Amino acid sequence: MGHGGNIYEIQRKYNIEKNKLIDFSSNINPLGLPKTLKKIIMSRMDDLEAYPDIHYYQLKTAISKYYSLDIDNIFVGNGAAQVIYDIIHGIKPKDAIVLAPTFSEYERALNSSGSNIIHYYLKEEDDFQLIPEDFIKIIDDSIDLIVLCNPNNPTSKLINIKTMESILEKAKKHKTFVMIDEAFMDFVKSEEDYSMLKMYRDYNNLIIVRAFTKFYAIPGLRLGFGITCNKDILNRINNTSLPWSLNTFAGYFGEVLLTEDEYVDKTHKWLEEEKARFVAKLKEIRGIKVYEPAVNFILIKIIKDNIDVDILKEEFLKESILIRDCSNFKGLDKKFFRIAIKAPSLNDGFIKVLKKIIQNN
Amino acid sequence: MGHGGNIYEIQRKYNIEKNKLIDFSSNINPLGLPKTLKKIIMSRMDDLEAYPDIHYYQLKTAISKYYSLDIDNIFVGNGAAQVIYDIIHGIKPKDAIVLAPTFSEYERALNSSGSNIIHYYLKEEDDFQLIPEDFIKIIDDSIDLIVLCNPNNPTSKLINIKTMESILEKAKKHKTFVMIDEAFMDFVKSEEDYSMLKMYRDYNNLIIVRAFTKFYAIPGLRLGFGITCNKDILNRINNTSLPWSLNTFAGYFGEVLLTEDEYVDKTHKWLEEEKARFVAKLKEIRGIKVYEPAVNFILIKIIKDNIDVDILKEEFLKESILIRDCSNFKGLDKKFFRIAIKAPSLNDGFIKVLKKIIQNN
Repeated sequence: MGHGGNIYEIQRKYNIEKNKLIDFSSNINPLGLPKTLKKIIMSRMDDLEAYPDIHYYQLKTAISKYYSLDIDNIFVGNGAAQVIYDIIHGIKPKDAIVLAPTFSEYERALNSSGSNIIHYYLKEEDDFQLIPEDFIKIIDDSIDLIVLCNPNNPTSKLINIKTMESILEKAKKHKTFVMIDEAFMDFVKSEEDYSMLKMYRDYNNLIIVRAFTKFYAIPGLRLGFGITCNKDILNRINNTSLPWSLNTFAGYFGEVLLTEDEYVDKTHKWLEEEKARFVAKLKEIRGIKVYEPAVNFILIKIIKDNIDVDILKEEFLKESILIRDCSNFKGLDKKFFRIAIKAPSLNDGFIKVLKKIIQNN
Repeated sequence: MGHGGNIYEIQRKYNIEKNKLIDFSSNINPLGLPKTLKKIIMSRMDDLEAYPDIHYYQLKTAISKYYSLDIDNIFVGNGAAQVIYDIIHGIKPKDAIVLAPTFSEYERALNSSGSNIIHYYLKEEDDFQLIPEDFIKIIDDSIDLIVLCNPNNPTSKLINIKTMESILEKAKKHKTFVMIDEAFMDFVKSEEDYSMLKMYRDYNNLIIVRAFTKFYAIPGLRLGFGITCNKDILNRINNTSLPWSLNTFAGYFGEVLLTEDEYVDKTHKWLEEEKARFVAKLKEIRGIKVYEPAVNFILIKIIKDNIDVDILKEEFLKESILIRDCSNFKGLDKKFFRIAIKAPSLNDGFIKVLKKIIQNN
């Protein structure tokens, strides 16, 4: 499995001490674990001795309140990864459209479901933006499922609501389901221009995936949810998904969601300021092309001839910095890497090392 | 889903305060969470901010040491439930034999995999013991998978190694896989007479499921593992199972496993003494039949005419005690229920209430 952020393997391989490795490869909110969550876990440790609520009633209630969703339309999973698997295994599409490049788990889940995958290649000359007219053309009766990632990983590009609606309308005509993974949407300040969450009741062919992992800095807790108004899909998922898929502490996350407004504001403020500052500084560096990011991670292309991502990754690791090699994303090659936006001092450190590597190679 | 232990739903429905409900329906070690685990979680809370190791290397290393298994033969899952799903979805059997009564998740996983299920009914007149000669007869070329639960839930009956070997040998001849769920095996003091864990390398058609949930009182943490020497099955599972299926804290469980010898001894001591005492007291009560339990839970039949499990459950709930209604197990009916063996004072309280209910009805 080619994912970012396997810091354990890197630490073992390069013999780097725990907490010494600076992980620019995984896109986690640098503000860290919300304080409410820490308190809840500390005080309710003994709750591990009981099975979690198989229906996750309190968690679903909190999600439904926070995002204004119907509680019966929500299903939860052990990270967005499980939600994606449950949707794909519920639909069992014969033919599915997947973007390239995009998050690799869609393809893995589709393969395990025996689906045929049609790749829609986002073009480098378009800065990897999806071109609505082109995309809509390829939707026809043969397509059972379209998978979109919004904002897209690793390109950090958004699709707006207008485009989404035209895709959904065309898809509806051809009885095609559309799954939109909005795992990074919480990082988008003007969510109302991009998220389909508020309009999920308008499309019977729409299933949305959300995750708390990235925004609330809890990848270790495993928590995601899906939402659809399609009762048939909901039934299929409820009938085949794992029981007790969330651990007890993940089940408590609803309480965090409803109390951490300040955390949300702080995150948006940090990201708005630091994204502008960090990207401007990166753009000053010769030898790389920086794709303008919509959220908290940045796709970068190496345009200097004698450097590729293998060299870059090795050189960064000498400074205990881990970057995300993007060569295993379909549609990208050994010239591409992805980094997360972190705290200002870490970002400055990153820039210093990057400049040095480019100069010396 | 009909499982024991949904205390949250019961608490909501009957308006019983949290911690007031005495849960005899779920089979968890009453010794509670091992102390090591509490300490680890408290001290490493911030580790939730990183993804768990996708390979769970340290956990697998600890499991391999503790149980003397090859690390490459181990796969981990989000509770035994996920391990069971991954095995069944990896094998995708056309026809599978499942015991009746037994744990309901095998049938659910087989249904979701599109399998045809052949039930082998354990007989009341045999005290629900599997009869080796009878069972072996039904294995032929048409059977792709045999699912066994040892000790079996809810009957609390064991199958010994000699029988297991004869089943495995016959199965091997017919190219039939055998999955043995040993989720409760840690509670068996003379494990060497019943567990196939030490012999898993001898059978290429054998996959064993183990869980830490019950013995270590951590159903809220979700942690199970599977073991097989069959490389093809291991590959199929690794290719289709969810990434990061365990949360960070579950990944630390290996450290508990290697240090809590005292916890293991204490548990065996408690169970040996209390099982004998509690069962003897239960057997004195007229109006019920107690099936001799192998481990920490007991199947009981109501033999008084005017009481069934609906009445019994309602009456127990008036005293804030939850029992496991077994009427939704195939092969059982409204006369059967299951209880866990708990601390002596709770067990005595249970007996008092049971006597009162039987007298008054």
